[in-house]
Amino acid sequence: MKFVSIIMGSKSDYEVMKACGETLAAFDVKYELIVSSAHRSPERTAKYITEAEAKGAQLFIGAAGMAAHLAGVLSSKTVKPIIGVPMSASALGGVDALLSTVQMPAGMPVATVAIGKAGAINAAYLAIQIMALSDETLAKKLLEDRAAKVKKVERDSLEIEMRI
Amino acid sequence: MKFVSIIMGSKSDYEVMKACGETLAAFDVKYELIVSSAHRSPERTAKYITEAEAKGAQLFIGAAGMAAHLAGVLSSKTVKPIIGVPMSASALGGVDALLSTVQMPAGMPVATVAIGKAGAINAAYLAIQIMALSDETLAKKLLEDRAAKVKKVERDSLEIEMRI
Amino acid sequence: MKFVSIIMGSKSDYEVMKACGETLAAFDVKYELIVSSAHRSPERTAKYITEAEAKGAQLFIGAAGMAAHLAGVLSSKTVKPIIGVPMSASALGGVDALLSTVQMPAGMPVATVAIGKAGAINAAYLAIQIMALSDETLAKKLLEDRAAKVKKVERDSLEIEMRI
Amino acid sequence: MKFVSIIMGSKSDYEVMKACGETLAAFDVKYELIVSSAHRSPERTAKYITEAEAKGAQLFIGAAGMAAHLAGVLSSKTVKPIIGVPMSASALGGVDALLSTVQMPAGMPVATVAIGKAGAINAAYLAIQIMALSDETLAKKLLEDRAAKVKKVERDSLEIEMRI
Amino acid sequence: MKFVSIIMGSKSDYEVMKACGETLAAFDVKYELIVSSAHRSPERTAKYITEAEAKGAQLFIGAAGMAAHLAGVLSSKTVKPIIGVPMSASALGGVDALLSTVQMPAGMPVATVAIGKAGAINAAYLAIQIMALSDETLAKKLLEDRAAKVKKVERDSLEIEMRI
Amino acid sequence: MKFVSIIMGSKSDYEVMKACGETLAAFDVKYELIVSSAHRSPERTAKYITEAEAKGAQLFIGAAGMAAHLAGVLSSKTVKPIIGVPMSASALGGVDALLSTVQMPAGMPVATVAIGKAGAINAAYLAIQIMALSDETLAKKLLEDRAAKVKKVERDSLEIEMRI
Amino acid sequence: MKFVSIIMGSKSDYEVMKACGETLAAFDVKYELIVSSAHRSPERTAKYITEAEAKGAQLFIGAAGMAAHLAGVLSSKTVKPIIGVPMSASALGGVDALLSTVQMPAGMPVATVAIGKAGAINAAYLAIQIMALSDETLAKKLLEDRAAKVKKVERDSLEIEMRI
Amino acid sequence: MKFVSIIMGSKSDYEVMKACGETLAAFDVKYELIVSSAHRSPERTAKYITEAEAKGAQLFIGAAGMAAHLAGVLSSKTVKPIIGVPMSASALGGVDALLSTVQMPAGMPVATVAIGKAGAINAAYLAIQIMALSDETLAKKLLEDRAAKVKKVERDSLEIEMRI
Repeated sequence: MKFVSIIMGSKSDYEVMKACGETLAAFDVKYELIVSSAHRSPERTAKYITEAEAKGAQLFIGAAGMAAHLAGVLSSKTVKPIIGVPMSASALGGVDALLSTVQMPAGMPVATVAIGKAGAINAAYLAIQIMALSDETLAKKLLEDRAAKVKKVERDSLEIEMRI
Repeated sequence: MKFVSIIMGSKSDYEVMKACGETLAAFDVKYELIVSSAHRSPERTAKYITEAEAKGAQLFIGAAGMAAHLAGVLSSKTVKPIIGVPMSASALGGVDALLSTVQMPAGMPVATVAIGKAGAINAAYLAIQIMALSDETLAKKLLEDRAAKVKKVERDSLEIEMRI
Repeated sequence: MKFVSIIMGSKSDYEVMKACGETLAAFDVKYELIVSSAHRSPERTAKYITEAEAKGAQLFIGAAGMAAHLAGVLSSKTVKPIIGVPMSASALGGVDALLSTVQMPAGMPVATVAIGKAGAINAAYLAIQIMALSDETLAKKLLEDRAAKVKKVERDSLEIEMRI
Repeated sequence: MKFVSIIMGSKSDYEVMKACGETLAAFDVKYELIVSSAHRSPERTAKYITEAEAKGAQLFIGAAGMAAHLAGVLSSKTVKPIIGVPMSASALGGVDALLSTVQMPAGMPVATVAIGKAGAINAAYLAIQIMALSDETLAKKLLEDRAAKVKKVERDSLEIEMRI
Repeated sequence: MKFVSIIMGSKSDYEVMKACGETLAAFDVKYELIVSSAHRSPERTAKYITEAEAKGAQLFIGAAGMAAHLAGVLSSKTVKPIIGVPMSASALGGVDALLSTVQMPAGMPVATVAIGKAGAINAAYLAIQIMALSDETLAKKLLEDRAAKVKKVERDSLEIEMRI
Repeated sequence: MKFVSIIMGSKSDYEVMKACGETLAAFDVKYELIVSSAHRSPERTAKYITEAEAKGAQLFIGAAGMAAHLAGVLSSKTVKPIIGVPMSASALGGVDALLSTVQMPAGMPVATVAIGKAGAINAAYLAIQIMALSDETLAKKLLEDRAAKVKKVERDSLEIEMRI
Repeated sequence: MKFVSIIMGSKSDYEVMKACGETLAAFDVKYELIVSSAHRSPERTAKYITEAEAKGAQLFIGAAGMAAHLAGVLSSKTVKPIIGVPMSASALGGVDALLSTVQMPAGMPVATVAIGKAGAINAAYLAIQIMALSDETLAKKLLEDRAAKVKKVERDSLEIEMRI
Repeated sequence: MKFVSIIMGSKSDYEVMKACGETLAAFDVKYELIVSSAHRSPERTAKYITEAEAKGAQLFIGAAGMAAHLAGVLSSKTVKPIIGVPMSASALGGVDALLSTVQMPAGMPVATVAIGKAGAINAAYLAIQIMALSDETLAKKLLEDRAAKVKKVERDSLEIEMRI
């Protein structure tokens, strides 16, 4: 069974990252979500990747803050696509996590999205877009979602717009 | 026919981005590469995306510098995955392009990779990893490439290493 | 009829941007204000620009946060002057929006003002200054406003100043 | 006679700012260009503004590096639109000049463009766009220029593009 | 009569800058404190400097936020020493004001101190140190104050220290 | 007797740095903790270092904010290892303290850890790791602690994880 | 046999890091130096750590650029002290590597030194200081080196100093 | 005899700092210039300050790069005014030295000037302005210099200016 695997470096990332799971669920995309740290539990992380890949994980979403190595470590253990979500977990506003996630050396990509909640949601969207390449139903849902976004913008605008 | 589409915002990005094409070619992944600007030629960009998608483009790689809007504009025109490569095209070392590419709002992801040449190569690798999800031959090549990287590290080390 | 068009990328920008409309109103400058996103509703944005320009829009004010592409997208659709207001909508304090707005490539200017509320007000002032070039009444109001600012500084100073 | 006034804080800015004059000239927009410093020659600067405005200056372009106060000082002396070009004149890559130029307090706008040469050219384009609001010939030239830019992108692309 | 002149760009800076006045008062150094803006009231600022210098101002302390030009403008109007206090008045934490204050061109110095309250106090100390060069009583007070600081550190330490 | 010496530049650092002492205590590592400033009490600081070293201090932990010179000053007074903890004590989020602590010139190292509380704890861990090089009991405790961290990650994960 | 282990993420780091080995050699401290990547050869890295520790490695120095995960990965595999050297390997001047190295989560310290060559030398000094805690000969050499540094400063000064 | 004391943290700063001495000499202000490091030769630095002050040093200029503690250390040893010049001595463009110099805690000011050569010259100007408070000849020279600067701006402008 094809699914998405979400790994957070710390339980405290859950408050932000649950929006990732909810977005996947809204598109009926199956996912696992666990806590495992690149630094504190490297063997658990490595073991999990192998098992998840064997079970059908199509891609991994790694969310971490500060010196955010989780997505990079994931990229070193599999050739499946890795999506990295930088968390804002220090006084630096997440710029530490952003640079630690995106500045990967040649040959070891991490698909990095925005810092924090926008990134949590975009990691899900990116995963859905990737899975939609071989799933026409999912691709159709993405187009419907896009159309709904346009409607939403229109409704939002009507609440406040001033026209001449 | 499935292929990857590479769009650069300026011809001057080619010097860096040709490494992206070369990486795709090394894996026998077909690609198109054109220049089209989010700002200077928005209609051309929009028209190209539609045509490329109709011809079989699986994903788009957008490379731009400064206020790098190209990947974001691509994301607004298709639900295919978009990979963004921030170019270092100003005195700010590419941090302007990085933030303009990665900080996308919720629902409109751009899979952002490293600034400059490392990013050009990683955009190709990420595209290959995504296409390999439905192409076992490609997945096998990625594993071979990974094994070759380990050998390369070993050879590099032997040139300079000092052991006790 | 000549007017100013204000476009916000998100309804959440309204809390800050209403100061822009209020400033225009204080000078009896007509304006429209709508929500339309560069990313989520690109066609709506493009269509609106054409219609607004036909109706008499003299210049456009685009306000957006994060990877703030709205003003840049406006600049690609018209040769009317574009004013960009970077919003502070992430943990980075608006530096992402500032760089995404100001670092436009040669030939595609965005007149960028300060981050947040000071920028919202200054976008209005800049629009008024531009329209005052062909409107003597407006020019006179700007001079009166400037004189009033001097008085305001004097009154403010009197509340706290200590003189020898 | 209507014209644009370009003021540079230092003669060393000329190498970059001559592109601003050349762009104005390409559109047959008249301009003056002088050196005058906000700090070293404040009276000269103030006197010049008054004289230039009396002669027909429609707007002022101020270019300066480091703690770039020139555009801000211009804004304090006139209610004509002020365009600020941050120069990269220190080891900080122009980020000092950018923040010194754009972060103006409410009521005193500076229309800020990109750092360095792109900004020098965009200051001219912005000035032209503003003057074109009351000059149909100029507006037409801007549209022709925009069309030429699209052709240029197409020619650039043809030199390197690879199509499937 | 010799005194120190404190100028704030905005009344809102007073909350932080009153610590500057209090520090001067604690050393029995006379001072004036007014609000005057580099941008909104340039003539008032220029006129004040001339009058204050005539009355005996030995040095000027300019406090401003964002594109903090006040201290730089002071430096352009007098050859008396200018001390600049960058205020944290935007979402950028005062880095805009710091760079706008410190990065002055050769020949036009601003003695810049820390951002915010520490800087407000240090501007006073620096002024006192400068005036103490020709005032032995003041120099003695500075030495006493320094000794008191050592005692304060010792007392602070005793409240929490753990010794073996 | 071997012990660790913790020096804080200000009593206000204690709220964060007590986590450093608690971590050392949890490993039964003896420590002193005092307040002494590099700037306000340099002689006290110098005297303390000599005495502490004579009493058996194995290494020093210096915690300070802003222009954080404390750890650097410690490094200039002893050849024992110095660990620096940058405090977030200004509107800059600790980046000032980080750069002031880590960018030491060749020959004068400061072992710098993360900004704020994570750094306070890591300074203790680093001290313990260093002391464990000649203390097998301590080394064993570190391994047990590491194993406990893995268990903690597993327990944390169980609270929120979703498995397929 | 006690020794220091130096691991570089890339052969290209050698040009800078050989200064680290030379410094250790100048103090007669034994060391190994190899290339092994956190990302490209994670198993090799893990295996090496275990073997090096068994052979007597007292501490590890990890040098890497960009998203510099090497030192962090080392810290996850051993409880020996880890020293991290951020390399300047991108257009960002090493700030990416600095934040990726120093901002480690609580419990997993990396003793971070300066970016680039100063850091390469300081990593060696820090290692020597740590080993000197149980090696009096080494401690004495450090004191001699410190004294030599004072002489060097004096000699340097004599070459250019101007005295009254 | 009254004089200015210039201390550089490293001989390599001389190339930039000689402009400081030359500026003082142009105003016939006496100065000493030595190399002494806050870190490598703290006793020499402390001893020098005492001797220089006894000989008549009115103020101290400290120039250093990276974690630039020199000016801060000077401020801890005397109550004479201290001017700090941040050097650009790392890949960070001097932002490390700027923050290490300017962000001093309350009560311990360092009068910070621009990074690099502009700062070297401004440190001299600031010293001259301070000494001119009790030296009318010097004050007159400063006014003459200011007038000369205006002439210089005018001459510079004539070389390139274009007038209508």
